[in-house]
Formats: sequence, C-alpha cells, structure tokens
Amino acid sequence: MKDKMIKNAAGRLIPEKINGEPIVPFMGIGKYKPQGRKFGPLISSVTDFPSDGDKTVPSLKEALIKAGLRDGITISTHHHFRNGDLVANMIFDIAHELGIKNLRWFPSASFPCHAHLIPYLEDGTIHHIEGSMNGPLGRFASEGKMKGVGVLRSHGGRYQAIQDGEVKIDITVIAAPTADAFGNATGDRGATACGLLGFALADSQFAEKVIVVTDNLVPFPCYPWQIQGNNVDYVVEMEKIGIPEQIVSGTTQITKSPDRLLIAELTAKFCETVGIIKDGFSFQAGAGGTALSIGIFFKQIMQEKNIKARYIRAGSNKYAVQMLEEGLTDFILDGQTFDLEGVRSMRENEGHINTSPFTSYNYHGKGNFASMTDVVILGATEVDLNFNGNVVTHSDGYLLHGIGGWQNCLFSKCTILPIPLFRDRIPVIVDEVTTLCGPGELIDVIVTERGIAINPLRKDLLKKVKGSGLHIKTIQELKEEAERICGKPQKPEFADNIIAAIKWVDGTVIDVVRQVK
Amino acid sequence: MKDKMIKNAAGRLIPEKINGEPIVPFMGIGKYKPQGRKFGPLISSVTDFPSDGDKTVPSLKEALIKAGLRDGITISTHHHFRNGDLVANMIFDIAHELGIKNLRWFPSASFPCHAHLIPYLEDGTIHHIEGSMNGPLGRFASEGKMKGVGVLRSHGGRYQAIQDGEVKIDITVIAAPTADAFGNATGDRGATACGLLGFALADSQFAEKVIVVTDNLVPFPCYPWQIQGNNVDYVVEMEKIGIPEQIVSGTTQITKSPDRLLIAELTAKFCETVGIIKDGFSFQAGAGGTALSIGIFFKQIMQEKNIKARYIRAGSNKYAVQMLEEGLTDFILDGQTFDLEGVRSMRENEGHINTSPFTSYNYHGKGNFASMTDVVILGATEVDLNFNGNVVTHSDGYLLHGIGGWQNCLFSKCTILPIPLFRDRIPVIVDEVTTLCGPGELIDVIVTERGIAINPLRKDLLKKVKGSGLHIKTIQELKEEAERICGKPQKPEFADNIIAAIKWVDGTVIDVVRQVK
Repeated sequence: MKDKMIKNAAGRLIPEKINGEPIVPFMGIGKYKPQGRKFGPLISSVTDFPSDGDKTVPSLKEALIKAGLRDGITISTHHHFRNGDLVANMIFDIAHELGIKNLRWFPSASFPCHAHLIPYLEDGTIHHIEGSMNGPLGRFASEGKMKGVGVLRSHGGRYQAIQDGEVKIDITVIAAPTADAFGNATGDRGATACGLLGFALADSQFAEKVIVVTDNLVPFPCYPWQIQGNNVDYVVEMEKIGIPEQIVSGTTQITKSPDRLLIAELTAKFCETVGIIKDGFSFQAGAGGTALSIGIFFKQIMQEKNIKARYIRAGSNKYAVQMLEEGLTDFILDGQTFDLEGVRSMRENEGHINTSPFTSYNYHGKGNFASMTDVVILGATEVDLNFNGNVVTHSDGYLLHGIGGWQNCLFSKCTILPIPLFRDRIPVIVDEVTTLCGPGELIDVIVTERGIAINPLRKDLLKKVKGSGLHIKTIQELKEEAERICGKPQKPEFADNIIAAIKWVDGTVIDVVRQVK
Repeated sequence: MKDKMIKNAAGRLIPEKINGEPIVPFMGIGKYKPQGRKFGPLISSVTDFPSDGDKTVPSLKEALIKAGLRDGITISTHHHFRNGDLVANMIFDIAHELGIKNLRWFPSASFPCHAHLIPYLEDGTIHHIEGSMNGPLGRFASEGKMKGVGVLRSHGGRYQAIQDGEVKIDITVIAAPTADAFGNATGDRGATACGLLGFALADSQFAEKVIVVTDNLVPFPCYPWQIQGNNVDYVVEMEKIGIPEQIVSGTTQITKSPDRLLIAELTAKFCETVGIIKDGFSFQAGAGGTALSIGIFFKQIMQEKNIKARYIRAGSNKYAVQMLEEGLTDFILDGQTFDLEGVRSMRENEGHINTSPFTSYNYHGKGNFASMTDVVILGATEVDLNFNGNVVTHSDGYLLHGIGGWQNCLFSKCTILPIPLFRDRIPVIVDEVTTLCGPGELIDVIVTERGIAINPLRKDLLKKVKGSGLHIKTIQELKEEAERICGKPQKPEFADNIIAAIKWVDGTVIDVVRQVK
C-alpha cells in the first residue's frame, strides 16, 4: 500500500512515512518545537569493563560480534577519512560473511570508495543508507535500486537526530588515527591523521556499543581525547584504517578559471562594500576552488585594512592556516580538515580548535555557532527564483551529493552563494529547484560572473550596495540572461518512487528525491 | 512515622527511605547493577536562544528568575573556588530575598565560607544539603539542626547520581573565572582562575537550566571551553565571583612533623620495596603535608632509578608541576588544582590535562581512570580492624568532612593509607569505624610511624615485603600499641536521629550518620 502524501510548509509533496516510520513534515523555519527529552543510552557499570583499562579485542569481527552484530540493527561510521576510508567496507564485509541482513548504515557521509558496498545493498546485507551519498551510491539509489529510502541530514541534523533519539545507533565503529587501549582517541596524529573526529562525537555519546579501531595504539592516556574512552566498549588494533593519500580530498588549489576568479573577487568586493569585512568579524567558506579564492581575496582586503578576524569557521586548509599563523585571525573553529596543513595546524596551533556538530550546528541545542558567524559562502547545484537552494541533486536529477553543513550554515548573518550562471551550458538559476534543501528566506545573496542578486527580504543589504558600482540585478534578470545564452533547460524526468528524504535541521522532512526515469 | 530500618551488605543499619525517597542499600562491591537509561534533559531549540549568541542577562537575580527559581527545586554549584567561593552565598541571598523555600542545595562540596547559609537552613530557605559539608555546615547537621537529611557522595558518585537521574538538577550556577557571552567557560585564566571546572561538567550536561557567572567576560570564543556554551542558558557578568587568596586552599607545604615525615618516607619505601615505583607507573596522592612529602620521596626514588611516571593523578600543586616540568612524568591528569602553580601549569603545559569526575571516577561508565592507577595514597579519620575506612566523621562523631574522590580512588591497584597511630592522643585504628565510607577489602596497606599493616587479602604484597626489613605488623598489633599509649578511646554518643547518608560509588547507601548527643 502506498503511503499517503502530504504537502509540507514548503509546498513539497512528501509521504507520511519513510521506511515505515511516521515523519514530521517541514513546518517552516523555526516553527517545529521539539518535545521530550534527549535520548539516554543504557547505564553502564565499570564492573563490566576491565579494571586495567585494556579494552582491546583481537579483531574487528570479534568486536562486532561482542557488540551484538545481528540482523536489522543500525551501524554508524564517520567520514573524516573521506575517500580514503577502509573501515566501513570491512564492517560490511564481516556482516556479509556472517550472513547478517537488513542493516541500516548510518555514516556521517559516504564516498566513491564505498561503491564496494553496492553488492551488499543488492543482496540485502544493507537495507538502506542514512547519510550523504556522494557519487556512486547516490546514483545507485537514484536508479531505484536501494531496498529502503535514503535519509539525508545535515551535519547538525545528524547530531540532532542522534541526540533526540530519532536514530538509535546499535553499534558505532570509530576509525581513529591514534588511540589507547581504553578507547581515548584522536585524529590529529598518527600515520592516517585526519585532524579531528567531531563527526563521531554523537555516535560515541549515544550509541549502545562503541568500537574504536586504530592503526596507532599508544599507551594510556592518548591525548587529546577527542573521543573519550569512558564511552568506548572495545578497541581494535589493525594494520591500516585509511589510505592517507585519499583522506585529504577536495580541491586544494585556488581556481584558475577566469569566470570563477571573477565570482570570487565579486563576492569579496560585495562583503567589503556592505561592511562585513571588519575588525573582529568571522567567516566560513567551504572547500573547492572558488571558496579558496574568496579566502585569498578576503586576506588581501584584511591586510589592506590592517584588520583581523576573530575566527574562521572551517573545513580548514593551508590558506586558513596561513591566515592563523600570520595573525590574521585569532582562531580557526574547525569541523574537518581538508589538507595536511590543516591537520598539522590542529596539532600545533593553540588557536586551531577542534569543533563538532554539537558546538557548531545542532539545532536542538542551547544555540550553536552557525548563527553567530558574520558571513558564510556556500555552493549549490541549483538556486530558484525564490532563492531556494539545492545541493544534493544534479540537473539530471541524480542524487550525487550530501548536505554536509550546508543547511546549518544558512543561519549565518549573511549567506552568499557564489555560483556560475551556468555549468556545461545548463543554467544554475531555475524556476524551481529540483530538490529543496534550503528555503530561500535564509539565502541572502547570489553572486554570478554576470551580476549579483540580493534577496528582496534583505532590504538592509540592498540599501548598502546603492551607488557602490556593484552589478546588482534581480534573480529573474540573472535567470533570463542565462536562458538567453543557453536556452531553457530540460527538466529531468522522475518516476513516482521515492528514493531519498531530505531532512531539515530540526528533523522535519523538507523534500524527497524520486527515482530518475 | 519512623522509616523501617534495614541492614545493608556491610552490616550497617540504614533506613528504607532518605528524605522520603526509597534508597538502594549497599550490596557489596560491584554487586549492584544499574538498570535503565541515562537521564535525558529536555530537548532545546536554538529558536529559544539569541541567534547572535549573546546570552547575558544583567544580574544573577534576573537569571535565576528566568531559569525558574521557585520553592522546592534543586540548585547546584561547584567547589573549585573552595573556601573562596562567593557565588553560592549570593544565590541563596537572592532566594531568601524572594521568599523561596525548601530548596535542595546540591554543591560538589561546601566549605567554611558557606557558614553564611546557616540562617537559610534555619529559616527553611534551604531544606537540606546534598554534598560534602566541610566544617561548620557539617557541625550544624551533626547537631540535628538541618531540616532534611544530608546526602554525601564521592566526586564520581555525584557524576553517577546526576547521569543516572538519581538527582535531577533544576538550576545549576557555574562560577567561571573566564567565559564568553555564549556560555563557553574556562577555569584556567582570569583574575579568579581556579584551574578547571570539571566538578561542574555533569551539571552543565544534565541540569535543566544552566547559568554561567563570570568576572571575566571575553569575546566569543572563550577557549578552552571546559564548559560548553551549547549547554548554557544564561550568562551573568559580575564584579567578583571568588576571593583569589582563598581559592587555593589546602596545605601547600610539606610536613615538618618528624612523625609525619617518617610515615611519608615509610610509604615511599614500601612502594619501592613492592615494585610499584617503576618506569611508566602512575600514582595519586592527595593534598596535605604528608601526601606532599610522599611526592618528594617518590621523586627522589625516581631520580635515583632514572625512571619516569606515565601520569600523576592529581589534585595538582607545585610539586607535581615540578615533576612534569622536569620530565619525571608524561602527564598530570588533574581533577582540581590546589595552588597557583597548578593553575599556571594547566594553562601552559600540554601534558597537564583537565579531567572530570566523568573520566576519572564515574562508576556507571565504560570504565574510569581510577582503577588503572598503580598506587593511590589517601587519608582517613579512622580505620578499623577490618581495614574499613572513615573520612567523614571525627572521633567525636561530628560530620566535618566530605568524601571527595576518596571512595573512587580506592579502586586503584594499591590503596595505601598513611596515618598517624594517634591524633591528639586518640588512636586512629579502632574496633569498628564510626562511619563506614570505604570497605576494607579495597584498602590494602596502612602505614603508621610504628609499623605497616598489610590487608591479609593482599597475599601478593605480604610475600613481597618478606625479608625487606620493613616493619610489618598486623593491624591488631598496631591498634593495641596505640591503646597501650593512649588508652582505649571513648566512643561518641549518638541520638537515633539520622542526619546524613553516605552513598557508595554506585548510588547505594553504605552508611548513615546520626546526630551527636
């Protein structure tokens, strides 16, 4: 029987249930108020743990069996190893070998390296994935081949879902570049150092069983203890938990495309014009060539004005580290490191701070860092005339990206999307986004190589750019300009079958993704 | 109607209820297995907090009212300011002014400075205190003047009680030497720096409302964030939260008493003889002259042997800091700083680590640090022929001390009590301890100026001291020796009225304290 469909506050048709569980439809920004209490994991007793603190077991297989690996449970992993992760594949190799079925995999994100798991999605070892599906797994889902419906959450939404008991994790496996036998673990050192382990924090706090795997076991105490051994059940030492060359992915070079450079420069100029770049300000820019270039332009402006940022929110890389080490910012508040300089800096610089989705993004906390940040610069696959943004599906309708911290960052004081007017001759500004990931009322500015559109809700910004010489257009004008050049793009065709749900930061469902025809 | 009395596994008569709530009697070490789930505080929403992160309110009074100050609730505070705390008194001044009644005060400990609160205990503003009562408040309770029954817990037991939902905190007020407007707070800097805020960690995580008060408000982010702003509701800036000269209390000089020095030397010699002092070992010694002196003797032995400790568990002071800075230990795992050198070192030395009762002591966790420590050196007001220890009542029956981390530390690999055979001509070794705080099976060695008694359960230690020349006696012999000199001490006389309950580390009741006649 098909689930009944309902229209949420964004006007999107969504089913009443996802994977058989009732959902809460998106109610508008800040409208849904959570009830009840945070999830409480079972109370432990130290009498069930070795008094000498040695929790090592000989193999991941043994640890998983001890932790109660069985049909239908939820297993979580983190993605700080990005495309170099070796551990998630091992977990499901073991599950498959043991004939376990119907697992829910709850990674903080998945990457092309996890295409290894497609046979397990086919044979029912894994029922479905809740988490970003970057690349092949997203394509697999978009083709309607996953048994369950994927659920995509932002980094903050993932913390919220775990904290609120919306997703109960039976076993988490935390791959740690350095750990001790008690389970204290850190990401900032060791041969497979990935910087930090913040994406695994919620898992360590709320999962029923916590397994730490490491390829660098050190004597107690491992410090810093980004993951606390007091939350850990088992520790497994193994040869290699990640491929160092693949851990650091994402673009690490500033863009060479003249159009992208122009967009970056315009974005920085806009920020300067409206007075965002001032002493003690804060900003966040993602990875990728354009974002990196914006950082360079920011730096120039700051040096000219002789001002200093209070903090850079990051995804850190060598450019942010340079700014920290040159005294252009007091702090980097880092959620994940994108290159080895980020890892080194986190280890060495007191001002390079390890954060987590709890501090940065959790919408069901007593505030978070995202809304305090002066300006955030983000990407999008599509933006529509209402400034709504899409980051998960491509123009061909395939689900190929995760949400990351994107939704959470929208709450900054000024959200700017620097985007090209078209990609591969397909306009990026559309009538209506294929998939709604972020409501337009939170998206303030669109910067393109042919002009800047400011959300009409931001009258303050519109006033500030008057007479500035910046090329201000309406989003309608930008869209028409793109269509004059490229023609009106064809819409992808979808089947009825829902292959993924997009959660908003508060756990409500803002949209769904359908199978590509 | 009087509560029914029951005999617990230690043979102590305890009531079925304390303050009207049913209790679990002590069942033996490691026998009580907790059921159920950790306490979940109410889920918050960032929509109820200022998006710019500024949670400041003009006064503590306003913050308390906003936080729901009302009759009968539980208010908690921490004791890192020790006898220099100004904040707890302010809270109850405000409550009194507002006519609030029947509050439960749940400090991590109280000190003589809190004698200010006696009128509020008399007039019913405060119903009773759960937490250590050092000095005047303990005497007040022992005189039968407190309306409710005091409940004493160890540091670890306090974390356990909060985590398990045994004590639900309505409002916690966290005095912080440095904080930002978001509520991030640290104890390691500022004019009233006290080192760390670990005793307030559980309160910040589990209390319904969290107020941070500070006399050093810094721009966001305050780092380190020993207390995380994401758990904080309100921030109050005030002139002065503590008296710096009083914050650092406890003896900071090694003892000059020849007897105490001898005990210290014998303790170190014992540890050397049985092979505890070896490369990579770990130890914990409390504050106080004898304990400090033992550290000095340990240091000499380590230097002679050219060995290094892996960690010192502390209560830190200048002697431990010297050992860290001279390379005699890799780490200080610190739970509270006892002098300004400890505070400085925590701020400056990477190896001086801020711990909490969660990591160090929580018995309802997945292990803790206490049981991993090679040797711990503790005090006691009384020890009996079964090696049972008392730390809370004096020979006159008055409740004048808290438990601190004492019960938790008993789980170390070797627990040594260096004690004088008598104090003020009153023998310390007795037939049966007045108040049972720690069962004898966890207490391994008693070191006195006239000989060392080893718990017969520790056959391994008895074997190791054979032929060592150490003056080994039975505890019976030591007791008789003291009584030959001082005579048999008179037992204090008690009324029936129970004035305090002593909790064991697992939340069960191990003993009660009665009113002194």
